[in-house]
Formats: sequence, structure tokens, C-alpha cells
Amino acid sequence: MKKYNIAILGATGLVGRTMLKVLEERDFPVKELRLLASERSAGRKLKFKNEELEVHAVKENSFEGIDITLFSPGKTASKFWAPVAIKSGCIVIDNSSAWRMNPEIPLIVPEVNPHVLKNYRGIIANPNCSTIQMVVILNEIKKHFGLRRVVVSTYQSISGAGQKGIDKLLSELEGNPNNDKHKIAFNLMFHDISTFSGHSEEEIKMINETRKILEMPDLPISVTCVRLPILGGHGESLNIQTEKSCSVEDLRNVFSNAKGVVLLDSPLEQEYPTPAICNGKDECFVGRIRKDDAFENGFYLWICADNVRKGAATNAVQIAELFI
Amino acid sequence: MKKYNIAILGATGLVGRTMLKVLEERDFPVKELRLLASERSAGRKLKFKNEELEVHAVKENSFEGIDITLFSPGKTASKFWAPVAIKSGCIVIDNSSAWRMNPEIPLIVPEVNPHVLKNYRGIIANPNCSTIQMVVILNEIKKHFGLRRVVVSTYQSISGAGQKGIDKLLSELEGNPNNDKHKIAFNLMFHDISTFSGHSEEEIKMINETRKILEMPDLPISVTCVRLPILGGHGESLNIQTEKSCSVEDLRNVFSNAKGVVLLDSPLEQEYPTPAICNGKDECFVGRIRKDDAFENGFYLWICADNVRKGAATNAVQIAELFI
Repeated sequence: MKKYNIAILGATGLVGRTMLKVLEERDFPVKELRLLASERSAGRKLKFKNEELEVHAVKENSFEGIDITLFSPGKTASKFWAPVAIKSGCIVIDNSSAWRMNPEIPLIVPEVNPHVLKNYRGIIANPNCSTIQMVVILNEIKKHFGLRRVVVSTYQSISGAGQKGIDKLLSELEGNPNNDKHKIAFNLMFHDISTFSGHSEEEIKMINETRKILEMPDLPISVTCVRLPILGGHGESLNIQTEKSCSVEDLRNVFSNAKGVVLLDSPLEQEYPTPAICNGKDECFVGRIRKDDAFENGFYLWICADNVRKGAATNAVQIAELFI
Repeated sequence: MKKYNIAILGATGLVGRTMLKVLEERDFPVKELRLLASERSAGRKLKFKNEELEVHAVKENSFEGIDITLFSPGKTASKFWAPVAIKSGCIVIDNSSAWRMNPEIPLIVPEVNPHVLKNYRGIIANPNCSTIQMVVILNEIKKHFGLRRVVVSTYQSISGAGQKGIDKLLSELEGNPNNDKHKIAFNLMFHDISTFSGHSEEEIKMINETRKILEMPDLPISVTCVRLPILGGHGESLNIQTEKSCSVEDLRNVFSNAKGVVLLDSPLEQEYPTPAICNGKDECFVGRIRKDDAFENGFYLWICADNVRKGAATNAVQIAELFI
């Protein structure tokens, strides 16, 4: 079997370290693994398959001989380094938001739109964590019953803000003071709001990325994103309308047979997905499927997934697997 | 000024103790205050205006000479004791769900439907915590622009499960094991699901009580209720449609002038209501008012209130004030 030279840029971050773990777990055919990061993290060592690998500072020639680079260095660094990597002839799978809405850049969830990558080489964007888990579920509805509209409110873990988000929560729970405008311990907060419309950046990402991935540029979609004092795992409360009439059982049947989806929906046994249940897993979990009589063909859905894995690292590695 | 003989049944519970505090804070004209509870809590002492009051076990004759009893003993006890209290000639303001949907029992939020109490004496139901904060806001929309439909997902603190909910969260955060099906520390869970439709009891309460209080029996309303690792304060993510066309500024103006409402909505300064901000307060907080272009006359709203105060104790005392 052919083996590949893989690099990870941003290897020491929360997502970078999880990429390393996922490559190992899925037994990705790796020949050489090159770990890259900023100057600040150079010299650190990370483990891969019982080997200690040194992290190198990223340079112009860091990508030479590499087939695929998994990028998770943040938006600004992605904008700078992705074109450099491409020049060396490698494929870039980028986890930041830098390239996602560029019309020439594929935005990929392997369960949903792998066809977009046909004959493509270059930069590929990995979607936002909350987008990924939602489109895996919505795409099944679109395929089988048609999707008319979506209203979603998210329940996002603080690991979406990376290691510093986790550290903030744990530090606050220990009673340490900080000067942040909003506490996260025993509280909730929103993602940064930087538009006059009042939408947060996360909300705008979910709207735009969902429409692009599902190839439904006019999909009516209403999004509210909330950050919670949870370490890992995102939940999403969806209210949808389908085009065709269907039943709760029809939806359960579709999800039972869908790739990358786990149906967990026994209401009277209080069985439903939670962040705790999906943590460390690669699938998207769905449950609490209920008919909503307030709308024609209305349904409620509850979705959970591990935001660092399926929402970032696993999805990136799955994109890389499409090139094997 | 006339003074009243007041009793509290369930005085030692989380809501009962808060009722005591709210009566004191609002300087309710109390002549005698009689604290009642189950046999188990009898003999305990609670403080009211620098006095130590003993808690008595509730009996058939406990309500004699009382003008108003605030009830928070749980549903089963309410069903038994409310008719007993009424026979003694007192008014009962009951915080449980026992009487709320009885068509002959008024279900009251003083900012919304005090007119229902005209010439009424008997049992009065205090609505569910998540219902109260929502109808205060929705009623303003109904009055000024008409309300076409509501989709809501809640972000509820574990204090909704009383002192035992708070104890569960704190114990789990300390690393103590338990046999509960779902953990709440660093996780979320749903309220008890006991219907084949898959709705939780809390979700059904919000739907039915909202329609009754707003006197809109056919209001299309879609509800998902979630419990979070937060000690106090409920959040609610609403997506609504108004009947008449209006702007975000129109809505802000209405809320700025509404009784019992605090508008906190400066998106670019990251000013919005959170459980931490509304904790210990008696008002309903609203912010993150955004236009939703996915629907005709569509808007997003974010609501927070202290669920033990406005969602229970304060609302009950405010109902009592209507009889002064």
C-alpha cells in the first residue's frame, strides 16, 4: 500500500495534537510525519506510534516532499502559510476560517460532499465544528425528504476556544479571578460579536458554510450560538421543516442507516445524545426526534458530536483519506 | 396600611426560603408569618426581619386566620393541601404544576394577565419558571406588534431541580461518583421524558402554560428544554415572527419601557444578558435582538431571568401584592 508524507502545522495546539492521535488511531498510511509550529513551540516533542517526534519551526521549505499538510495554526497563519505549502506541491487541509467562503476553495465534509474534490488539488477548507455535525444530519434529510428550513440553537463546549478556553473554565471553577467581561464557570457566553447586525462570527459561519456545503445558497437558516461550561462536545437543538411528508420513524430509519451517524433515541428510557456520551467519538449523534405540530412537516432534532474530533481533527483526516 | 397574615407551605425548600427573602426585601405588609412544612422539617428555624421563626408541621388547622398562603411543597402535597387551605378561607398561590392547567384556576404573571384575578379568591397557580420569563417578553410583542409564532430552546440552570439539583452538580464537580443516568457536571441533560411523543414534561408545560397565559390557545410554539451545569438563572433562545412589520429598534424601544423588563443589548460591546448577570434580580432581561431574514417579520431574542426569583418566589409574592 502506498504511504504518504504528512505534515501537521500547528501540531502543538488542541486540534493539532488530536490530529496526531486520529492519524494513529485510523492507521493512516504515513511514511514521514513532519510536525510544524511557530518558533515558540519549536523543540517540543510529541508522541506518534511510540516514536517521539520533534516539532520544527515552520519555514519556506518546510513543505518540500510533503503530500498532504493538515493545517491548524489559526486564521492569520493559514492565510500566510497555505499558499507557501501549495507552491511545494502538497495538498493543504486547513482547519481555520481563512479559506472556507472562497468560492474556489472546496469546503468538505466527507459524508456530505466528497464529489467536490474530484480532480482537485490545492487548499481544502475544513468547516466550522458546529457546521460539520449539523450538515452530516441535514444532508440525510435533504437526500431523503428535502429540507425546507432550519432554526438551530447551539450548546457549545468551551474547547471550541482551544486550550485557553478549557484553562479559563477550570481556573474559574477553582475560584481564580480574571478580568474577562463574561465568566464561563456556572454561566454561559456568546462568541465574539463584530457585526452591526448583532450576529456573532460563529453564527455567520454556520449560516454561510451550511449553505455552501449543502449546495443550497438560499436555504432559510436561523442560527444562535452559545458557549457553555462544558469541556468537550457540542449539542445543537434543531427545528426543521422537510419538503416531503414523513414520520419520526422514517427519520429514525434514515439515521440508523446513515454513514457516520449514531441514532440514540429512546425517549422513555431517557436515552439521548449528550456531550459526555459523544466525547472521544468520531460520529455525529442524533436523538430526541419529535414531530412539531406547529409547522407543516415540522420536526425537532437534537445533535451532539465531539467538536475537537469530528468537528475538527477527525474531519480533516477523513478529507485526507479521500486522497489515498 | 392594612397588614396580612401570611403562611408559606414548603418554607424550608429552595423556593420557600427565597419567598421569605423576597417578602422581606419588598417590605410586604406582613402581620403574622407562619412557616409550614412536612413533619420532617418541623422545628427548623428560619430568619425573617431579624426574627427567628420556627417551622411547623402542616396540619388541617394550619391555615386558620391566614389571608394568603404561598405554596411550594411539590405537586402531590399541593393537590392535597390547597383545598384544605381554601376551606379555611385563605388565598393559595401555588408554585407547583398541580393546578396550572385546570381551566378554572387562574395562571398568573402580574406583568401579563393580572385582570384574570378580578373578583377572584381561591387557588392561583404560579407558572413554570421558564414560562414566566418568556411570557413577560412575548406579551410585549403581542401587545405592540402581534405574535405569529415562537421557536424556543432553553438553557436552564440545575437549580430548577431544587436544592438536590444544586447538590448533584457541586458533588459531581468535586469528583464524587453517582449512579445517575446522565451527569450534569461538564455536561447537559433533559428534563424527564414521560410521553410517547418524546416531549419532556417541562416542554409540555411551556407550550400549554404560554398559550393559557397569553390567551392564545392556538399559538404555534415549538419548545426544547435543556438543563445545564449552571447554579442559577435560565437563558432562552427565541426565534419569533411578529404579525406587523417592525424593526430591531422598535423592539428595543418597547422593551426599554416595559414593566419588569431590563434591555441589555449592545452587541459590539458584547453586552447581553447571562445567568450570572440576572442572578439575584427580579426582572426579565432581554438582548441579542436580531432581525432574522429567513422569515417574514422574523426576529431572534435572548432572554434571561433568575429562575428561583422571577421564575418562582418573586412572581408568587407579586401575585400576593395584587391583593393588597
